[in-house]
Amino acid sequence: MLVIKLGGSAGINLDPFCEDIARLSRTGEKLIIVHGGSDATTRLSEQLGRPPVFITSPSGHTSRRTDRRTLEIFQMACRGVLNQQVVERLQRLGINAVGISGMDGRLWVGQRKAAIRAVENGVTRIIRDDFSGTVDTVNPQIIHTLLSGGFIPVISPPAVSTDGEPMNVDADRAAASTASAVGASALLLLSNVPGLLRQFPDESSLIREIKRTDFQRAEGFAQGRMKKKVLAASEAVLAGVQRAIIGDARAAEPITSALAGQGTVFA
Amino acid sequence: MLVIKLGGSAGINLDPFCEDIARLSRTGEKLIIVHGGSDATTRLSEQLGRPPVFITSPSGHTSRRTDRRTLEIFQMACRGVLNQQVVERLQRLGINAVGISGMDGRLWVGQRKAAIRAVENGVTRIIRDDFSGTVDTVNPQIIHTLLSGGFIPVISPPAVSTDGEPMNVDADRAAASTASAVGASALLLLSNVPGLLRQFPDESSLIREIKRTDFQRAEGFAQGRMKKKVLAASEAVLAGVQRAIIGDARAAEPITSALAGQGTVFA
Repeated sequence: MLVIKLGGSAGINLDPFCEDIARLSRTGEKLIIVHGGSDATTRLSEQLGRPPVFITSPSGHTSRRTDRRTLEIFQMACRGVLNQQVVERLQRLGINAVGISGMDGRLWVGQRKAAIRAVENGVTRIIRDDFSGTVDTVNPQIIHTLLSGGFIPVISPPAVSTDGEPMNVDADRAAASTASAVGASALLLLSNVPGLLRQFPDESSLIREIKRTDFQRAEGFAQGRMKKKVLAASEAVLAGVQRAIIGDARAAEPITSALAGQGTVFA
Repeated sequence: MLVIKLGGSAGINLDPFCEDIARLSRTGEKLIIVHGGSDATTRLSEQLGRPPVFITSPSGHTSRRTDRRTLEIFQMACRGVLNQQVVERLQRLGINAVGISGMDGRLWVGQRKAAIRAVENGVTRIIRDDFSGTVDTVNPQIIHTLLSGGFIPVISPPAVSTDGEPMNVDADRAAASTASAVGASALLLLSNVPGLLRQFPDESSLIREIKRTDFQRAEGFAQGRMKKKVLAASEAVLAGVQRAIIGDARAAEPITSALAGQGTVFA
């Protein structure tokens, strides 16, 4: 079983991704797809006259400021449109996909952060009405139910909080938790980069493999969004997934390439 | 098994509806929920600077003009937000709901209309790029899969066309097709009216029961959106569903009330 996370950044073409999913699925491989929707959310936010706000934590992680209205915009773009675009393409390729969110079947449950710290111009601010958190529990029954019915699950954030509210979560880390919960043999994190670069943005400095003793050091090479991907890949392997691969979603056969070792392999 | 369609008009409160679902679900009754999203779509269309356009067919049925962008707005509002609001409420009540659309698992498949006729100021116009149609085939496997996994399906339009494109469909009629495909004993069509009125809008003129010999005559009493509800209720009963009830979603226990015969019962 494989968990494949497709990034939601600009410039990612869904067609080669879905064609590769269809090819692999026909070999009998069980596939679980997770996707984000960052770029689509930003565009919709702007169309609705609410440009997105990004906040940086004291540890340097960047995330979207998510009040309840932003969460709704996120659900519209990510769950309403992008999720169904993946489903639509897969079905045209003969794959019976079903789109769900992390709320459906209480797949992804976590504690909503009561307060988050945001650093702005060197000053740390506390935000209390943010609908974000981390997945603490994965309830994989809905995935097993869909797979055993012959359906491929296509999963989108948000997750659900322990209070039953929708909650924005990092889709890379949620995919990592999912991979370990279902006992996947590999987690693929595909986005618009070739993998982890030793000297960003020099693509020739791609790191091919990272052993678990080097996971912490690897985080030091990561910039911006890549920090979360390195964290997710590390978490998956430490939780029992054999391999986590940060690969390029822009390749002609992005999944096949990543499985062949193109990208950065955490093992 | 019951199929319960909740209308998407303004003024419908989700809470009593979801509480009644939770109560009924605990008795062991198998429930399938279908919802529309007309009002939410209209509001989002306006927020995005694209006020909705409604067209009237030569036979007097009104429907939303749905170009591809409108369809996307519909998916955002209906599938992205409203569907998940129902799921969120049900889960807080301890019911493990899963939201899907008519595309997921190819639940609702139909022929997209190559050309639709719209009457405007007495002139009939032909529209060729509309993403709308009627459900011809229901593939109920995804419903059976979810129910047997212990999940309550919450289904939202759109459907999927035979060409694999999302397609706007009337949710009342899609619910009727679903009810007959799963062998439901009843179809409930709940909205912001008490039922079919002999003299609209006089609520004291509510028609209590309509026998199948009177289905065609009943259509004559219906105005606007109610025409589709009468059509849906008639289609369900003629396709083998024992009862179809057009009832009031605004009641304190809307489902229990409708099942007790409050509303207009087609049998």
